Amino acid sequence: MSESEYAVAGFDAVGIAAGIKKTDAMDLTIIASQVPCRAAAVFTKNVFAAAPVKHGKRLLSFNPEQIHGVVINSGNANACTGIEGDANTQRMAEMVEQSIGAMDNSVFVMSTGVIGAQLPMEKILGGIPKAVDTLHAEGWESAAMGIMTTDTVHKVRSRTVNIDGHKVMLTGICKGAGMIHPDMATMLGVVATDGYIAQPLLQEALSYASDRSFNRISVDGDTSTNDTVLVLANGLAEHDEITDTASEGFVQFRDALTEICTDLAQALVRDGEGITKFIAINVNGGMSNEDAHLAANTIAISPLCKTAFYGNDANWGRFVMALGRSGAQVDPDACSIFISSGPSADSIGSELQLLNAGAPTGYAEANAMAIFAQPEIDVRIELAQGNGSATVWTCDLSHEYVSINADYRT
Amino acid sequence: MSESEYAVAGFDAVGIAAGIKKTDAMDLTIIASQVPCRAAAVFTKNVFAAAPVKHGKRLLSFNPEQIHGVVINSGNANACTGIEGDANTQRMAEMVEQSIGAMDNSVFVMSTGVIGAQLPMEKILGGIPKAVDTLHAEGWESAAMGIMTTDTVHKVRSRTVNIDGHKVMLTGICKGAGMIHPDMATMLGVVATDGYIAQPLLQEALSYASDRSFNRISVDGDTSTNDTVLVLANGLAEHDEITDTASEGFVQFRDALTEICTDLAQALVRDGEGITKFIAINVNGGMSNEDAHLAANTIAISPLCKTAFYGNDANWGRFVMALGRSGAQVDPDACSIFISSGPSADSIGSELQLLNAGAPTGYAEANAMAIFAQPEIDVRIELAQGNGSATVWTCDLSHEYVSINADYRT
Repeated sequence: MSESEYAVAGFDAVGIAAGIKKTDAMDLTIIASQVPCRAAAVFTKNVFAAAPVKHGKRLLSFNPEQIHGVVINSGNANACTGIEGDANTQRMAEMVEQSIGAMDNSVFVMSTGVIGAQLPMEKILGGIPKAVDTLHAEGWESAAMGIMTTDTVHKVRSRTVNIDGHKVMLTGICKGAGMIHPDMATMLGVVATDGYIAQPLLQEALSYASDRSFNRISVDGDTSTNDTVLVLANGLAEHDEITDTASEGFVQFRDALTEICTDLAQALVRDGEGITKFIAINVNGGMSNEDAHLAANTIAISPLCKTAFYGNDANWGRFVMALGRSGAQVDPDACSIFISSGPSADSIGSELQLLNAGAPTGYAEANAMAIFAQPEIDVRIELAQGNGSATVWTCDLSHEYVSINADYRT
Repeated sequence: MSESEYAVAGFDAVGIAAGIKKTDAMDLTIIASQVPCRAAAVFTKNVFAAAPVKHGKRLLSFNPEQIHGVVINSGNANACTGIEGDANTQRMAEMVEQSIGAMDNSVFVMSTGVIGAQLPMEKILGGIPKAVDTLHAEGWESAAMGIMTTDTVHKVRSRTVNIDGHKVMLTGICKGAGMIHPDMATMLGVVATDGYIAQPLLQEALSYASDRSFNRISVDGDTSTNDTVLVLANGLAEHDEITDTASEGFVQFRDALTEICTDLAQALVRDGEGITKFIAINVNGGMSNEDAHLAANTIAISPLCKTAFYGNDANWGRFVMALGRSGAQVDPDACSIFISSGPSADSIGSELQLLNAGAPTGYAEANAMAIFAQPEIDVRIELAQGNGSATVWTCDLSHEYVSINADYRT
């Protein structure tokens, strides 16, 4: 996709290197709308919410309809930084507001990086005018680069949807994470759209989309100090305003937002720290969707399951162990387990059943190993307890993960 | 400690190589008492309880006062093995009962190893008579060797306590685990004692001891398919029977049992898979002891905290992240964090405070790194929310852990 294919009417974006990071990588991103936007956001539930999260929550509560943009720095999370951290977030926002000629209290702030150190404000305040000067409609790739931490690739995606005969554009960027547990690192995402939608409906669409995307790669309630997903909608597309959740336009917009969020969320997993495999854990037959999610997630976060994926070892005993301790309603004598290579893996034949109603099926180990040697693996668990279903996307736990996280600050 | 120092009046023990493992390592252990014992046990809470766990629960419920011993195999967990697995456990118990001349329903069974494969019964049934023939009072070290899986050292400990002027002996063996999350592998423990104690009080003493030892290295409710700790008390010590929890004798016995269980539990962590560091997480000022345990445990199981320990990186931002997502009551502006080298590490000076009431203290990074470079690290968290306290013992997450678990079955 060329740069111009990311452009959204009325939005400009850019990422620059402001010297916040020790390297000369990009570390400061600004996204600005020429007209005021409706905003919606979801934030971390971590008790230690970082200064920019507290600022964002305030902004969303008293000015959700007149937002002009967001400024994001990487290299420093501005978390656990006390009153000074709060003041620094405020200064960042104000400097962007003044530089782009916007009202007070109209710019969000996000930060990601090391916790517990004060922001290098001279570098940030020096970088903001430089970034504003280079804002342009096609700056989305650099914007995605400016928010990276341990990510190895920048992540930007677009979707279009036709509402009432008018093209609506959505472009999103995100950063990991670059992690195995998204909840344990900072996940940031921003989606800009020219869709014209009432603010409460924008928030509803984002909550719906997040539950089916970013929350499917994360433990419920397990979030970093900084996690934030923000949507800005400036309404420049020429369709009628979406004001009714029962309308076709709302469903179209919501589904397009869900698609882009799912695409971005999966991109986070695929760029997980030290990843060698992309894994989908599908649980069906749960007592409820929540119960199915609990079961799938317990497998997804289990170090023993994750190292088995890394080792090409279809050790379903570890899946069973995780299911049994998950807290989900599980009947050992009703549980079945299937594995297959994922859609983009080489086709190596159909699904293989490992466990049937609690008993091993006598499958050939070589067939299981052939599937587990693929770069994408689907695991399907049938609990036979009800109609609940959930999918969680995760990756394996490799030597490289340990190296990255043991040496993160050195 | 020489072999004879482990001997407990009336008990014989032995471990042998019966060919259950692919290697020629020991894999079958029998512990037998010449007279009937009172028994107490704690079992896994995993829904997928293995066949020997189901057998043990039945035994404990209808014959807790006439137990003659326990047979333990390593190399195969006999979990997820259906009716055949149940029958195999029963056959193991019966063969030992007949071989040692004990009543029906008087021998416990434990199994540890791979899940989902049937026991090699010809090897086990062939090994039992051989093991019984070699039972002896000083066989505790071989008994400890026969239950090892990925453990690198066998674990046997003794304590004596003087009750009413009579020496009471307790000898215990255990196996990991050999893991970072004890809940995700099989932890087995057996303590034999000549103490004379009413069965309900024996169970009470074991529950008390487990809560302060084995449950301090494990996530609540997070247990493998096979976890079991068994205590056998044959009453041959000559003190009066302990029948009152308010008596001095009960407290002495309970505390000695707690000491030996704590010693064994810490030995499990010290032999954790790939361990390079032994870490104590102490949380004070919790709303309750349970809340403090939740906070300590969330740090203990966090891959990001564990890799920071491995990398000698005093990255307290990760501790804060874990506290904030733990679910424990935490006030970011009240939380303080201290670190020091553990008691058996080289002394490198006193405790270092990293965080004071939510604000970094401006400590010298070199001092923090010097502490984190030690083989034993104590972390002390002060929550300032109440009077609850808890300590959890854990280890770091290393490259070697990944290697061991990626290659476990190969």
